[in-house]
Parts: sequence; C-alpha cells; structure tokens
Amino acid sequence: MNLREQAAEARRAGRILSGLSSRHRSAVLARVADVLQDRRVEILAENAIDVEAGRLAVEAGTLSSALAKRLALTAAKLQALSDGIRGLANASEPLGRVVRSTELADGLNLKQVTAPLGVLLVIFESRPDALPQVAALALRSGNGLILKGGREAARSNAVLHKVITEALAPDVPAGAICLVQTREQISDLLALDDLIDLVIPRGSGAMVRHIQSNTRIPVLGHADGVCHVLVDVDAEPAMARRLVIDSKCDYPAACNAMETVLIHRDWPHTGALLNHLREAGVVLHRGPNGPADLPNAPALRHEYGDLACTVQIVGDLPEAVDYIHANGSGHTEAIITGNQQTADTFLAAVDSACIFHNASTRFADGYRFGLGAEVGISTSRIHARGPVGVDGLLTTRWKLSGQGDTVAPFSAGDRSFTHRPNEPDA
Amino acid sequence: MNLREQAAEARRAGRILSGLSSRHRSAVLARVADVLQDRRVEILAENAIDVEAGRLAVEAGTLSSALAKRLALTAAKLQALSDGIRGLANASEPLGRVVRSTELADGLNLKQVTAPLGVLLVIFESRPDALPQVAALALRSGNGLILKGGREAARSNAVLHKVITEALAPDVPAGAICLVQTREQISDLLALDDLIDLVIPRGSGAMVRHIQSNTRIPVLGHADGVCHVLVDVDAEPAMARRLVIDSKCDYPAACNAMETVLIHRDWPHTGALLNHLREAGVVLHRGPNGPADLPNAPALRHEYGDLACTVQIVGDLPEAVDYIHANGSGHTEAIITGNQQTADTFLAAVDSACIFHNASTRFADGYRFGLGAEVGISTSRIHARGPVGVDGLLTTRWKLSGQGDTVAPFSAGDRSFTHRPNEPDA
Repeated sequence: MNLREQAAEARRAGRILSGLSSRHRSAVLARVADVLQDRRVEILAENAIDVEAGRLAVEAGTLSSALAKRLALTAAKLQALSDGIRGLANASEPLGRVVRSTELADGLNLKQVTAPLGVLLVIFESRPDALPQVAALALRSGNGLILKGGREAARSNAVLHKVITEALAPDVPAGAICLVQTREQISDLLALDDLIDLVIPRGSGAMVRHIQSNTRIPVLGHADGVCHVLVDVDAEPAMARRLVIDSKCDYPAACNAMETVLIHRDWPHTGALLNHLREAGVVLHRGPNGPADLPNAPALRHEYGDLACTVQIVGDLPEAVDYIHANGSGHTEAIITGNQQTADTFLAAVDSACIFHNASTRFADGYRFGLGAEVGISTSRIHARGPVGVDGLLTTRWKLSGQGDTVAPFSAGDRSFTHRPNEPDA
Repeated sequence: MNLREQAAEARRAGRILSGLSSRHRSAVLARVADVLQDRRVEILAENAIDVEAGRLAVEAGTLSSALAKRLALTAAKLQALSDGIRGLANASEPLGRVVRSTELADGLNLKQVTAPLGVLLVIFESRPDALPQVAALALRSGNGLILKGGREAARSNAVLHKVITEALAPDVPAGAICLVQTREQISDLLALDDLIDLVIPRGSGAMVRHIQSNTRIPVLGHADGVCHVLVDVDAEPAMARRLVIDSKCDYPAACNAMETVLIHRDWPHTGALLNHLREAGVVLHRGPNGPADLPNAPALRHEYGDLACTVQIVGDLPEAVDYIHANGSGHTEAIITGNQQTADTFLAAVDSACIFHNASTRFADGYRFGLGAEVGISTSRIHARGPVGVDGLLTTRWKLSGQGDTVAPFSAGDRSFTHRPNEPDA
C-alpha cells in the first residue's frame, strides 16, 4: 500500500474501532497492555540493537547524546507503560458523551455527542515509549493513527508496532495503527490533508516549526514556550524567590519553564532575587530595560531552554502585559502578588493559554492539570489550547431524531421551535 | 496603516473590547443597534447607489443577477438587523464561562474559562446585511474583526462600517472592526497567519475552496454540501415522500439540501417516490446503480444546488454508509426508517457533521438547532463541526490560583495532587 492507501485504510479501520462498544475497546486496550509485558524479551532485544547503534552513532558524531539517551527501554519502563494503558482501559468512555441535548420542537430531539476526529498523524523523535502511549490514546478515542518514528529507534518502533497491531485482532484491522519509518515520507504525509485530520508533533521546536510551515493539516502543539513571571510591587519576597526558582530551575529545558522574569520597578528586593537566581546557577541577561550590568539577551523573544533567563524591569502592570503580548509565545505566564485586584487584572488581561497567580509556571502540564494522559500543549487558539488530554482528539456530531419532520410547516408558521434544553442524558 | 498594522490593531483593540465588562459590551451592542435605525436614511442612500450600479452591471453582463439581488437594503431589513443585534446585546455572556474547575491540590485551584479567539477575518460577497451581523457577533464574543466585502457593495459596506465604528466610541477603538475593500488584498490578508486566528468565508463553494487552498489560517465553513437521504426498506412511504421532497425542494440551493437519494433495493415504493420528485419539478439522474432509464449523474460527488438529484439503489445499510463515506462531503445525511435498530446503526456509523433520523436535512442550521446566531456550518472536524454559533468564535484559557505553590514538593512526594472537580461556578 502507498501512503495514501495507508491513510485511507487508517480512516476505514478507525471507523470500525470507534464503532466498537466501550467495553470492547477497553478489552482491546487491556490486550495491548498485556502484550507489552508478555513479549518484553522480544521488545527489549530489538531495543538493545537500536541502543547499541545509537551509542556508535554518538561516537561517530551522527546522533546527539540527548536523542541517544532517550532510546533505551527497560523492563520497568514497559511495566509502567503497561500500567498506564491498563489505566486508560479502565478510564471513562470519551466517545458518545452528550455535550448538548435540545428539544427543537415537539418530537424532534437533537443531541451533540463526542466523536473521534478521524485520523491522527503523530510524528515523534527517538523516544520509542511514545509509540505505545500514543497508540493507546488513539484506541481509547476511536481514532485511526499514523505513526512516524525516528530512524534511530526503527527496530524498537517496528517490534512495538508489530506486537500492538497483533493484539488488535480480531476486533480491529491492523491498519488502524500504521507505522511509517523512512524520513523521506514526512512531506508526503503532510500533503494528505484530505485524509489526515490532525498532526501531533512530539519533538523539538525546530521540528514543530518545520511541520507547521509545511502542511495545511491542523497541528496540535507548540514550537516555543517563552514563559514570563511577573514579580509585582506587592510580591512577598520569599514567595517570589520560591516561585521564580521553581519556574526556572525545576526543569530548565521544559516548555513551561520561565524564560523572562519581569520585575516591578518599585519592588525593593530585586537585588536579592537576582542573587538567588545566580546562586542557583542561572545566567542572567538583560531585556531592553534590564539591569545595566547584565549582558544583553540574545533576542527579545528567546527560549533559553537552559539555566539562563532574561531580566526586565517594568513600570506598571499594563507595561508588563504589553511586554508579554509583544514577546511571549502565548504559552504560560505567572504573576506573583499579594494584591488580589492586581492578580485579577493580570488574569483577565493576559492573552495566553495559561495564566497563573502565585503558582509556578511548571504546573502547566496535562498530568498536573488532572487531564489524565497529555497529548500535548497547544499554543494555537483553534480546537484546543493549553495542556490537551484525550478530549483534544475528539470532535462532535449532531444527531437529530424526528418523526417525519419537515421544515415547511415551520417556515409557514404552522409549527414553532421550542429549543428547550433536555437533560444531558435524555 | 498597511494590512499588517491593521490586523495588529484589530488584535490590540479586540483585547480592549474583551476586557470590558459584560454590561459594557452589551451597551456597545445596543448603540450599534441604535445607529442602524437612527442613520437609516444615510445608509439607504448609499445602498441605493450600489443597487443602481448593480442593475447596470447586470445589464452589461459584468455581475450575476443572483449577486445583484442580494445587494438591496430596506428600512425593514435594517429594523430586523437592529432587532437581532439588540437580542444579542441581551443574550447571555459567552466570555469567562467556566468550562472546567478543578482543585489541583489544597489551595491550588484551576479554572478553564471561555475567551475570544483573537482576530477573525470574515470574507463575504455582495450581501451588505452580513456586515452588521458579523460585527455584532464579533463584539459579543470579544474578537477583533477584519471584514472583506465585495466591490459591488462597496458604498453600502463603507457607510455601515462608518456608523458602526462611530458607535464603538469611546469604549472600544474603531480599529476593533476593520473594513478592507479592494479585491487585491485578499491574498495579503490570507498570508497573515500570525495575526489572524480564523477565516470565515461567506459565499460560494468556489470562493470557500479558493480560500482553503490559499491560506494556513484555519477556515470555518464548508465548500460543499453533498447531502444524502437514505430511504430504508422499513421506510413508511408517505413519510419518505414528505422528507425527500422537503430535503430537496424546500430550498434547493442551500448547502443542507439533499443531492442524492439512496433507496433500499427491496423498498416497494421507489417508482412512486421518483414520480413525486418529478412532479415536484426535480430532474433525476442515476448513480452507478441507479434506475437504468435515467441519465447518468455528472459526477459521483455532485452538488446540483438546484431542482435535481442523483438516485442510487443500495443493497443494504453498510453499502449505503460506504457510498456516503465515499461520495459525501460530511455535511448532513438522513435515514428514513420505521426500524429503530436500523436508525441507531446509521446514526452510529455515519461519519458526518449531522446525522438525522426521520427528519429533513434542511434542519441542519444554527437557528433551527437553537444556537442563536449562525456563524457558519463547518464540515471540518477541528474546532467546530456542523452548525456553529457564537461558541465557534471562542477558545479557552486556563487560570490557576495558588498561594506560592511550586512543583518541587510534588516531585519529591511531599505533596500530592487531589484533582477534585470544583463546582463549575466555584
């Protein structure tokens, strides 16, 4: 099958998958959880070959050690994956949930119900544990799936794909989850906008940007996380120190890490705060209005992804908000203040996916938000914004049940609409 | 200002607009409703010039009479527009609605609240009454708006834009609603994917297709409405006649009109039904398995938009569903059957925005669905699907309120997440 046929088959098989009862789909997920355990020897053997090849590639300078580090699977990792998938098997059914139920007129009832998007394309770099996770999310949400893995994890991905699709039989055709292995095919996949409904890139900002620029398919994700923390004039100094350090240092490479700290001009503890950052190993740069003794930031909008940040002094709240709108990426911004009114103004004014008061930017995460599995964090405003769970893989359908109703009598004024909300489960 | 500056100003002004209190935004809407009345003489005078120019253009063969017909405004139309906008002024507030509220941990509370998308680009053809309608929807939903009207309605659009933006002062900068008048600028607007969040084309399928193919901005709408009605073996003949005639003849040019009737092979009333269609003036064509005495349909997937349809005989329900998936546009499909189990199977299996049982396809409409104003009907699966109301102009933001909370103690196991749902209004 060529790629187009594979995508069409993913749609067809996805429709069979989503047509299964919830119990049935849970059973399929439970089988997937089982095979990751039962066939771990085979999986780990193939993975060991990728890991060894990765080690040699790092020595040869053809693979970054960061990517190589993510290659390895272990029995414990497979156990954790298996547990996660079993959790998803037992989670509440996302499909067919009634979002809205309205009596349009006597005997004419409308329901808006959740439904799968159709076909997802997930592009991921070396981490092979992404494959079973994403496959499980697609199965739970009734979507067909096309997986594009990295070359460096080819054998691991192939064996994971093989054991998972074998576990789909006999209920779901193997084509519901399709694995594409060669790099050349990415652009061909990105051209299939009539067959693929959503692209989810899981990788570097550069990779996400490349995909966003090369497809008309909607992309769920974000290329940048340029997050700001605003230390207001009414910020309590110990809290400011705690939150700024956590936002920057807990995991500096994360997309929800702080990249710029904005400090109110009249806050009296700036020097102490900057010293705390330095003591924590953070390299400080100055924004357009930062402390004169610091080196200039590389750019106004810059994601360090490391123990470094930009410091900018601001005159008031509107100036801070304007700075964030001009230089942020719309991901996550936090204010630290003891003044509730200032906090309310900030939370109302800042146009980002996540806006926090007196909390670390690092909370911007699907798991921490209680969404269960995280599909990604979206900085787009369409479809899903912020941390996205299984709900981001759904759309809705409208189902209308009548008794032979035509619009003619409504147009003629002989019947009229009631538009009465029904109980959601009616 | 160039287009890029105008779009940036629409975003800035939109943020001011969405920052107004609900009462305040309602007052702005009420003023817009008022000016359409108070300044009707001026509006109708400008409109009369467009209408006269349109009449001459039709005579000269440079404008279609269909477009010219839609140009005229009347005092009654302005009254109706004004009433509609006053209704929107009094409608419930769409912004800041709490979609989800969760206690993440003791003292750490998360809310997902509705927010405007940002900047909308609405492209419409000759109908100038679209301008006040769309402007009112943007004001209600707190979005900045760029309007691109047709050249044939240039003077009407200009005066409507002028009186409406004057009514925004002093609360909202006039740049919140920007009117672009020349045709050459469409492609420039469609390139501003960093400044415009959603394009809403209101016009022909050809226009929608052109826009979809020439922008990376998400497009809300549909290019085709190739709707199917399936007459099942258990269809009651009088109901089948009524629904098929209403679906096709009530308004043949509408996107939700029936284009293909699928009839079960064993249904005994096919001849009578086709005669009823002929008597109603409908020209019949045959699908691949239609009655041999009919001329072939122009294409498998064809929107007649007129008193004509394709007739296809099907062997069973799965065959009908496959035919719809292969040849439909995912807009609206209906089944006519007295068998509830058959209906349930159809409603579960058909992957379209709207799926109806024993009801006319013509009900697929935002007003008939009770959504209030209709923004458009979407056949995309991302963001919004089916008839779209004001909700389709919204996204959400996540607001987190803490007391100085960092993630470190959660990672260390010293604190744990509760993820307890709060009452929605908490």
